Amino acid sequence: MPQSPQDDAFTPTARSRVARRPQRARYDEASVFAILDAGVMAHVGYVIDGQPFVTPTAYWREGRRLYWHGAAASRMLAASGSGAPVSVTVSFLDGFVVGRSGFVHSLNYRSVMAFGRARLITDPAAKRAAMDAFIDRLYAGRAAQLRPATDAEITQIALVEMEIEEASAKVKDTSATDLAADAGWAPWSGVFPVETRIGAPRPSPDIAPAGPLTADLAPYAEGARLEDALTRAA
Amino acid sequence: MPQSPQDDAFTPTARSRVARRPQRARYDEASVFAILDAGVMAHVGYVIDGQPFVTPTAYWREGRRLYWHGAAASRMLAASGSGAPVSVTVSFLDGFVVGRSGFVHSLNYRSVMAFGRARLITDPAAKRAAMDAFIDRLYAGRAAQLRPATDAEITQIALVEMEIEEASAKVKDTSATDLAADAGWAPWSGVFPVETRIGAPRPSPDIAPAGPLTADLAPYAEGARLEDALTRAA
Repeated sequence: MPQSPQDDAFTPTARSRVARRPQRARYDEASVFAILDAGVMAHVGYVIDGQPFVTPTAYWREGRRLYWHGAAASRMLAASGSGAPVSVTVSFLDGFVVGRSGFVHSLNYRSVMAFGRARLITDPAAKRAAMDAFIDRLYAGRAAQLRPATDAEITQIALVEMEIEEASAKVKDTSATDLAADAGWAPWSGVFPVETRIGAPRPSPDIAPAGPLTADLAPYAEGARLEDALTRAA
Repeated sequence: MPQSPQDDAFTPTARSRVARRPQRARYDEASVFAILDAGVMAHVGYVIDGQPFVTPTAYWREGRRLYWHGAAASRMLAASGSGAPVSVTVSFLDGFVVGRSGFVHSLNYRSVMAFGRARLITDPAAKRAAMDAFIDRLYAGRAAQLRPATDAEITQIALVEMEIEEASAKVKDTSATDLAADAGWAPWSGVFPVETRIGAPRPSPDIAPAGPLTADLAPYAEGARLEDALTRAA
C-alpha cells in the first residue's frame, strides 16, 4: 500500500466504501489493479428500466480505464445512452473454509468492485487500436502477427470504455475461525484451496498442420496458474 | 433438452432472451440448473438509486429458488425493500480461443443469467433450516455434526430468497473459427482450456490435532475439479 491513503488511491464514497468487515477492504491502486490484472472475465452490472442486468464479459485495464466489448455494451448503451452508470466486478474464489459450527463456514475470495460511466467508442481507428491492445494485453506481441482486421470487422465490434471513478478491493484469506463455543466439537476445520490452471492446448482441428506455439502464447503453458499467466502477459 | 419447450423450461421475455448468437442459448431447466449447480459463487446485481451494484456472493439452489446471505442482501434490501428486482449471474471461464486474426479471438464460457425479486427471510426457524441446507448442499451430512447455531448467530445472518422468474443459459465451447481471409496466415490457432481444481487441504492451525476428513468433505479431495465436487455434493 502507498505511504499515504491520498497517494494513488481511490477515494471511497457511500457507493464503494466496504460496509461489512471493513478491515478486509483496500482502496489503493496497487491492491485494486493487482486483482483486476489477474482476471479476464468481469461481471458488468447495468440498469435498463429499473431492472439490473449482470453480464460476464472479457475486459482489460489501461491505467484507470477499463475496456470491454460485445453485446452487453450494445444493449446497455442502446438503452441508457453514453454515460450510463455501470458497476464492474472481478472476483476469484480462493477456497472453502469449513469449521466446527455452521457460522464459521465461508469462502475465501478476492474481489474488486469498480464504478464509473460507460462510453461507447465509435471511432474506427480507436477501435482498431483497442482491439490490438486487448490482443497484446493477453498475448504480448501477437497483434502484429495476425491478419489485419477488415473495416467490416471493426464496424461489428461494440467497444466500451469506463473510467474508474471509485473502486474497492476486498480480500478474505483466512483459516477457520475457532469460536469459544466450538471447543470440543469434532469436525475437521480448515481450508480447501481452489486454483485455476491452464490445461493442455488443443490445436484447431481445421488448420493442419498447426503452427508452432509462439512466445506470445508462452504464459498459457499447460499447468500454469491462470492468474499468473494473465499477470505475466499484462 | 426436454421434448417440448413448454416442459420444464423457462419462458424468455425481452429481459432474458439471448439476443446475440441465440444458437448458444438454452432456456430448459436441465441446462440452467446444470450450470447453477456447478458453482458456488454468483454475481448478484441490484440497483440503489439508479446505481447498479454487482456483489460476488455464495449461493445455492433449491428447485427454482436461489438463496444467498450476507451484506449484499442487507444493503440492497434495506435500500429497496422486499421484492427488489435482482439479477443473479453464474459463469465459468472454460478457455482462451486464439486464431489467425483478431476477430476470432474469444473466450469459451458457460453462464446463466437469472432474474427475480429478492425477499428477505426473517423467521429464525426458516433461517436456521436454510443455514443447515446450505452446509449440507456443499458438505452432505455435515450440518448434523456441527455445534448448533446460537440464536445470536441466526439473528446476525441476512438470508435472501429469489424465485427464478426467468433464466437463460449461454454456452460457448468452440475451437478457433477459420475465416476464409485467414488462409495462409501463420499464427497457431486453437484453445487453451482453463480448469479449476481443489488444492491440498490446509487444516486449521489453531485446532490440534485436526480431526479426520469425514465423508461430507470427500468431494473436495485434492485434484478434484471444482465443478465435479460441487455437482457431486449437490
